[in-house]
Amino acid sequence: MFTGKNIVHSDVVTTATKEALFRRGVTLEDIAKIVYEMQVPYHEGLELDECVDSVERVLRKRELQHAILVGIELDELAEQGKLSAPLQQIVVSDEGLFGVDETIALGAVFTYGSIAVTTFGHLDKNKIGIINDLDTKKGNGVHTFLDDLIASVASCAASRLAHRKRDLDEAGITYLEANAQKDKPSPNE
Amino acid sequence: MFTGKNIVHSDVVTTATKEALFRRGVTLEDIAKIVYEMQVPYHEGLELDECVDSVERVLRKRELQHAILVGIELDELAEQGKLSAPLQQIVVSDEGLFGVDETIALGAVFTYGSIAVTTFGHLDKNKIGIINDLDTKKGNGVHTFLDDLIASVASCAASRLAHRKRDLDEAGITYLEANAQKDKPSPNE
Amino acid sequence: MFTGKNIVHSDVVTTATKEALFRRGVTLEDIAKIVYEMQVPYHEGLELDECVDSVERVLRKRELQHAILVGIELDELAEQGKLSAPLQQIVVSDEGLFGVDETIALGAVFTYGSIAVTTFGHLDKNKIGIINDLDTKKGNGVHTFLDDLIASVASCAASRLAHRKRDLDEAGITYLEANAQKDKPSPNE
Amino acid sequence: MFTGKNIVHSDVVTTATKEALFRRGVTLEDIAKIVYEMQVPYHEGLELDECVDSVERVLRKRELQHAILVGIELDELAEQGKLSAPLQQIVVSDEGLFGVDETIALGAVFTYGSIAVTTFGHLDKNKIGIINDLDTKKGNGVHTFLDDLIASVASCAASRLAHRKRDLDEAGITYLEANAQKDKPSPNE
Repeated sequence: MFTGKNIVHSDVVTTATKEALFRRGVTLEDIAKIVYEMQVPYHEGLELDECVDSVERVLRKRELQHAILVGIELDELAEQGKLSAPLQQIVVSDEGLFGVDETIALGAVFTYGSIAVTTFGHLDKNKIGIINDLDTKKGNGVHTFLDDLIASVASCAASRLAHRKRDLDEAGITYLEANAQKDKPSPNE
Repeated sequence: MFTGKNIVHSDVVTTATKEALFRRGVTLEDIAKIVYEMQVPYHEGLELDECVDSVERVLRKRELQHAILVGIELDELAEQGKLSAPLQQIVVSDEGLFGVDETIALGAVFTYGSIAVTTFGHLDKNKIGIINDLDTKKGNGVHTFLDDLIASVASCAASRLAHRKRDLDEAGITYLEANAQKDKPSPNE
Repeated sequence: MFTGKNIVHSDVVTTATKEALFRRGVTLEDIAKIVYEMQVPYHEGLELDECVDSVERVLRKRELQHAILVGIELDELAEQGKLSAPLQQIVVSDEGLFGVDETIALGAVFTYGSIAVTTFGHLDKNKIGIINDLDTKKGNGVHTFLDDLIASVASCAASRLAHRKRDLDEAGITYLEANAQKDKPSPNE
Repeated sequence: MFTGKNIVHSDVVTTATKEALFRRGVTLEDIAKIVYEMQVPYHEGLELDECVDSVERVLRKRELQHAILVGIELDELAEQGKLSAPLQQIVVSDEGLFGVDETIALGAVFTYGSIAVTTFGHLDKNKIGIINDLDTKKGNGVHTFLDDLIASVASCAASRLAHRKRDLDEAGITYLEANAQKDKPSPNE
């Protein structure tokens, strides 16, 4: 299927993904704040650091990395006027019935199960945090794909936390206790 | 693939689908009200009748009909205590990490495109109208699948309206005008 | 949601979609031949014209049009070396774990139900007709997205035919009879 | 969201899932053989044990477990004639346009990315191994959901192997070497 010679190493893709987000003005903490807001009602003692960690981890997944690279590429090409007509105009105007941005984002969301899908839909309609910031300063650039990609990363990280919370519940410890244990030298994880 | 002899006729399935919804206390108008609330910000002159009509039409689709029949069957079997352990307990408790209810509903949602998917996610998180009513009177029955199915039908009908609105825009007429024309004898549709 | 002024008219998008396929060496008949091969075991009297017609109809759907425009744009940009690293290399090498091509194609496939999804998976693994031709002459261009898009259009058209066949069965007429009626002036459709 | 009291423990669900498969005549090795046949062309030195291990691991995922429990429940209820009309007849006849079986199976498939989705579609059309055995002895029971569930588990396990193979490639070791190392006491995993 591939020779190995021309294949881009995963580390290169991981680095390129984070660089692309930073280049477009999005920090991992921006995304983590959305995750926090979505999950804190269900998680006593949830801390922002947990959310940053969860964002970090979902960003290691190939499906998310590839989606982010393609989506941001299309935003940047549209910003530079380099897409051909009529796609250029469709992407710049971010029209309501264009759905490839959601489709690309959803491909990654699916890998975190149905909780991630419903969270994604919620974020897409109720733009919060950095998603809203991008939406309101649209005059300054094209973010047609970026806002869906952020919603995708946040949904995946939130779903990952929900599943982890359940595992902790079954082990009989709370987030607070898990956090406290983290400060001591820990044998596991 | 099939002989034709044992195949259930579409009309039978259509009737059974509506009967199942009514039996569970859900009218087409209940669903149409959700559609109206979702779409009225974008559609000047939208009327509830338009939404009822859109609900009627999406309920003719096989994917939606089959999803509804399977989901309501599982709710009713759970209500009667007839599912085997541990599925019985999982469905009755409607636990957060059980996602087959969303999955079955999403199968139908996908057929109306990415707008329908994000609308579904929004409705799943922000239960409105009949979905909320079911959620708050949960002591009286099992509606684990039903609330997702209603969100599914409403999302499909809302997406169908959004696409139709665009077609009317391109034809240069408003909903108000389209509605007015409907009262006259009309050659089209 | 949109002003109406900057919106690209559907007719422009429809024309651009067909032109993009032709520019990449794909005719509607090429795709129709795949549909025919997939459906003829189930449809006595199926003719290639029916398949061409079904391809024509699914190509009017916005979800499919947008997917095709985005996918072919990415193929062409990669061919011209205009994507940024490492995406350029990932798309050119069409590596096995890159899935955005399938994801974009699947977004459209979903709108024709689960039959379309399984047909798409089958075509993706067992490249037939024009999909295979593109695959074997890969030295001449980048078709990373195109082969999935063709599989997507073919799957949608095949699913549409399967549903229509069922409707004809229930009405008690065969494809042969439906075809015969078509030659006479017909009141319906 | 839940009190913790009525929640079924994950271990109970895991055990129930395997028991349900065994009760329906499906062993993990049956599924592993399908995985082997799908992946051996790409993996020098792949062994059946690797595939059994991969099947074991994907069966720990909640999305797969819930899908299996629901699907097998519906098969068994249909076999006992306990579903209501017309669903009973639709499930028993396993008619081509009924897609809830594929939908439930796909929900789990999505969590392993687009490779899993195309593999699932391929298996659904080209029934191999135990899937074919079930299909040909249909007179002995209802397996409308089971064959899709097996295809789902096999697709997930195959996708998991493909991603792991890539990780080994990047680490510069082959499956053969990884297997050899496994016989020595190993510090990692």
